[in-house]
Order: sequence, then structure tokens, then C-alpha cells
Amino acid sequence: MKIILDGMGGDNAPSEIVKGAVEAARHIEHQIILVGDEERIRTELSGYTYDPEQIGIRHAPDVITNDDAPVKAVRTKTESSMVVGLNMIKNGEGDLFISAGNTGALMAGGLFILGRIQGIDRPALASIYPILGHIPSLLVDAGANAECKPVNLLEFGTMGSIYMEKVLDRKNPSVGLVNIGSEETKGTTVIKAAYELLDKSDINFIGNIEARDVPKGKAEVIVCDGFVGNVILKLTEGLAWNILKLLKAKFTAGIKSKLGALLLKDKFGELKSEFDYSEYGGAPILGIKGAVVKIHGSSNANAVMNAIFKGIPYVENKVVQIIQNSVEEIEEILISE
Amino acid sequence: MKIILDGMGGDNAPSEIVKGAVEAARHIEHQIILVGDEERIRTELSGYTYDPEQIGIRHAPDVITNDDAPVKAVRTKTESSMVVGLNMIKNGEGDLFISAGNTGALMAGGLFILGRIQGIDRPALASIYPILGHIPSLLVDAGANAECKPVNLLEFGTMGSIYMEKVLDRKNPSVGLVNIGSEETKGTTVIKAAYELLDKSDINFIGNIEARDVPKGKAEVIVCDGFVGNVILKLTEGLAWNILKLLKAKFTAGIKSKLGALLLKDKFGELKSEFDYSEYGGAPILGIKGAVVKIHGSSNANAVMNAIFKGIPYVENKVVQIIQNSVEEIEEILISE
Repeated sequence: MKIILDGMGGDNAPSEIVKGAVEAARHIEHQIILVGDEERIRTELSGYTYDPEQIGIRHAPDVITNDDAPVKAVRTKTESSMVVGLNMIKNGEGDLFISAGNTGALMAGGLFILGRIQGIDRPALASIYPILGHIPSLLVDAGANAECKPVNLLEFGTMGSIYMEKVLDRKNPSVGLVNIGSEETKGTTVIKAAYELLDKSDINFIGNIEARDVPKGKAEVIVCDGFVGNVILKLTEGLAWNILKLLKAKFTAGIKSKLGALLLKDKFGELKSEFDYSEYGGAPILGIKGAVVKIHGSSNANAVMNAIFKGIPYVENKVVQIIQNSVEEIEEILISE
Repeated sequence: MKIILDGMGGDNAPSEIVKGAVEAARHIEHQIILVGDEERIRTELSGYTYDPEQIGIRHAPDVITNDDAPVKAVRTKTESSMVVGLNMIKNGEGDLFISAGNTGALMAGGLFILGRIQGIDRPALASIYPILGHIPSLLVDAGANAECKPVNLLEFGTMGSIYMEKVLDRKNPSVGLVNIGSEETKGTTVIKAAYELLDKSDINFIGNIEARDVPKGKAEVIVCDGFVGNVILKLTEGLAWNILKLLKAKFTAGIKSKLGALLLKDKFGELKSEFDYSEYGGAPILGIKGAVVKIHGSSNANAVMNAIFKGIPYVENKVVQIIQNSVEEIEEILISE
């Protein structure tokens, strides 16, 4: 397997990307190719001991930044690390592409360069959702499709279920549809129609879940449109940060409390790490013809390494092919409507 | 002013409702009328010292429960405490109606019995959103309208702004539209059109806010459709509960930590109370011809009392009339489109 890394994407490129590649390489046999400014990447690499047969460089002089308009950037910055990397996947020069760069551009690049899996109407971004004190869930769609048709939500549930089973090793994962009540009759016309479709599918659909049950891990795969998905992910981030900040402030308010805070400092650290997405290997773009994974813009070497590790079963267990095969079932459900 | 209380709605009726009425009466001059099963309410009242001139009872033999289908219940249970109470407002026998009963039924009853303010397309439920360590925001719509047109979001912003200023005493409150990015061009077609409408209005519209900024109090009035509003409120509740639970578990894991936990127990209490909605006086139904406030189904006497206190400026400052007057401005914005 050849793993292609966007060497220039994200806040900490190329240093943390290169470091993550070197660390990952020590644990795996697969080849890793870093795409980007050859000189800068070579300089970073020179600080490490590594096997030059295992870690290679593909020069790409340009970079897509977070300020670039996604579609335009993909169309015009043809020599960017992201576009060059995606083209390598397209041309069979690589099996997995990982980038910490512009999310919209990666989504657009995946669509334009690799293309949709035939029969999948809307590819989606699947994000890990941390469940405190427990294994995480997977949320689809994390923000790629703000407006959805019922069939898109069926696709999200199906693709998320496959990824969860084949990559994160969760047998027959439960799939829940985010709604404003648990009853079948609740919600918008789109949600009600999506419920019916999901209910007919072979996945382990457990029905509607309310937002209050999302952080409790009631569903292993959380299905929602990209607008609601974005709200869930960002509200979780903002609220968790706020609660921890306020608790810290409260705990350091008095002398007694300062003592307590000292004793309990490590507990805060533990909780913070539970919200740390970097352990979980990034967010795959499901529904395109290739294994493409988005990692957080602020990813460090550890996040890069974990994305590589999780990317291996993504390729080896043929998730893209299995999603392709699932299209037939989706179409049968639609015909039976 | 006459304040009408649904004596039978909620989990703790009639005891906590009656207790809240008695406690509130000690601080105000206004008359309070408890609607519901006369015998049960009289029994509860007999436990207190109160002025029978100030606290009265209106008998209503029936009750709308949470299991009742809202529209059907309002149509058929004409002798229920909720329907009788709303009719008292309609007939001028009262100025403010407060209920801890079935939210959907209260919304339906408000619409059918009191009616929409002419020119307001969709009345909404406005809920307090707790901002940790700071004064709370107001979220509109909290769940009454899962699907919205752009004009509805303009109405929510306008009505929320009026309520915030006249009842919660916040001068020229900032109004933010929940979106998946802060740029004007982000979001669904409905959200983009709503942005343009809000931007033309005279309210203090600060543009889009991302969900991560909601718990930080970036906007004093949070505008969103009822689906997203429900997700925000319930996710906040579920996540806060989960974080506190996990922290408690972590803090009591070791001996050292137990000591710390003991020292810090009161801090947890403080944080919990910040999430306590009961201080804030319930959720008004904005856009109907009357002052109607929903309080939580589990409201205790304190929540009832605070709802009465907050209800007084709602009536005295003529919020319903001011919303009526704002319709002209909303219509002018629509015409200018």
C-alpha cells in the first residue's frame, strides 16, 4: 500500500506532518509519500533517521490555503500539494490520501478529481464524535451538505455503518437519526421521509435520537444533515471548552479550592484528552472513488500518525468497494417507495 | 393585573404551583388565579397563610397531559385547566397565563384560542439559554417551528429582541443567526435569505454565529429554526450533564481525589445552578395575542414564582402590543426585497 500525505496542509505543516510520517513508518511496512515543497520537506526529514525507500517525496510547488475558495482553488491550483496528491490516487500511484488542509477544497477535490461512487448522490464527511468515558460515535454528515434530501440521509447511515464496522471495528453498529423527538412522526418532511427509508434498510437503524442522547452514545452512527452536524460538533466543542474553563476558574477561586484544584489537575487533563479527536484518525470523505481522510487543521504528529494507522484498514478492508456494493440496496429501497 | 396560573400542568402540580403562587403573592400586589381542580387546589392552599382576595381559584375539572395529542386535546378538552385559562385571557379576565403543562398543547391553544398577531406568520417559543459565568441569552425558536421560511427567522429576531429589551432589560440586544460559518455566503438558501432580511431590519443584527459561539454568549438573541433550536437546547443539556457526571466520577476515583472532591463539592453545585433555568422565568410564546409563558414540566415553586415575576414586565411593558407594532417594519423589509 502507498499512503499519500499532503505535506503542506494545516497549521503545522510541513513539520508535524513529516514527524507524523516518520513515527508512523516505524510501525508499518507500507510506503509513505509526502507531497509538497520538496526542499522544505527534505529539510524536515533530515532531522530524523528513516528509511528513504519507505518515505518518499513528490514535489508540488503550490499550496491551497484556508483562505482559498474551495472550488476555484481546486480548479486553478493544479500544482498544489492537495491536487497533486488527489491525482496520484486517481492515477493509481497511491491508495490513501490524508490532508490537514482546507476542508471544502478537499471535499471539492475529491468530487472533481476522484468522482462520486456511482449511485451515491451526495458524498459526506464523517467525523468522530467523542463520547465521554466511552468509545466514540461517528457523525455523518459533519458539514459537507447543508441541505439534504431523504435519500442522502439513507446514504449517510449506510456509509457510516460500513465505515464504523470495517475501520473502527464495531460489529453491526447502531444508527440513529437526529430528530426533535423520538417518535416516528416527529420532525420535518425530509426527516420523516428519511426515517422511512432508513427503517427499510438492512443497517441496524434504532430510530430517532434526540440531541440530548448524542453525547451519551445512544447511537454509534449519528445521521443528520451537514447543517445540524456542524451545529452538533461545534456546540460540543464550544460548550465543553466553556464548562472546563468555568470549572477551573471556580476551583482556583479560594485557598481551599486551590488545594483541591492542585490535587485534581490531572483529572482535568484526562477529561480534556477525551475530547481530543487526534486519537481517532480523522474524518473520511465517504462516497467518493478513493480513500481520502481529512484531519484537523491543527493536527500534530500524533494525529497524523493515527490517521495513517486508521487509514490502513480503510484501504485493506475495501470500504470504498463495499460502499459501491451497497448502492444496489439503496436503490432497491428507493424503488420500493 | 390578573395573573392566571395553570394549576394542573406539569409534574409537580398542583402542589408546587400553589406554593409558588403563595410565595409570589407575598412580593406583589397583583391578583393570582389558580385554574384547575378546585378541591385539590383548595386543599393545597389550606396549608398556607394567604390573602383570599389576592389568590383565587377558577374550577376546571379536566387536565391536558403530556400524553395528549396537542391539537386534539385543545379541541376536545374544553374544560381542561389549560383551555379554561387561555379562554380567560381571551375574554379579558386575565392578563398573563403561565403553564407547566404540555408544550405542544399550549402552543396550539395559544394559536387557536388567542390567535396570531396579525402579520406574524409563525409564533415561536423563546427559551432562555444559560451562558456559564454570565447573563443568559434568549433562543428563538426553541422548537415550535421545525421548518421555517426566511421571514419567520426575521420575525424570531424581531420578537426576541423586543422581549429581551422589555422583559429581561437588555438594551439594544445583539441578535445572531445560527449558521455553519460566519461569512454572509454560508448556509442553506433559507438561511442566506434570512440573513439579508435581518440585515435590513432595525434590530442590532450582528450576523451569523457559529454553534461554538452560542455558549459563549456572542449573541444575546440566538435566532434559528425550531429544529436547530431543539438540537442546541437538548445537546447543551445532555452534554453538560455528561461532563459533570464524568468529572464527579473522576474526582471520586482515588483517596487524594476524594479529598479534593469534598473540598470542591460546592463548586459543582454552583455550576449546576448556572444551568438551572428556573431562575429565569420560563419561555414566552411570542407572536400570539396575549402574554403566555411556558415553564418547565418539572418546575418547582421557585420556578413558578420567578415566572410570575418576569411575567409582570411582559404585560406592563406591553410586549404583545410592541410586537404588533413591529409588523409594519417587517412588512416594509419584505416589500423592499
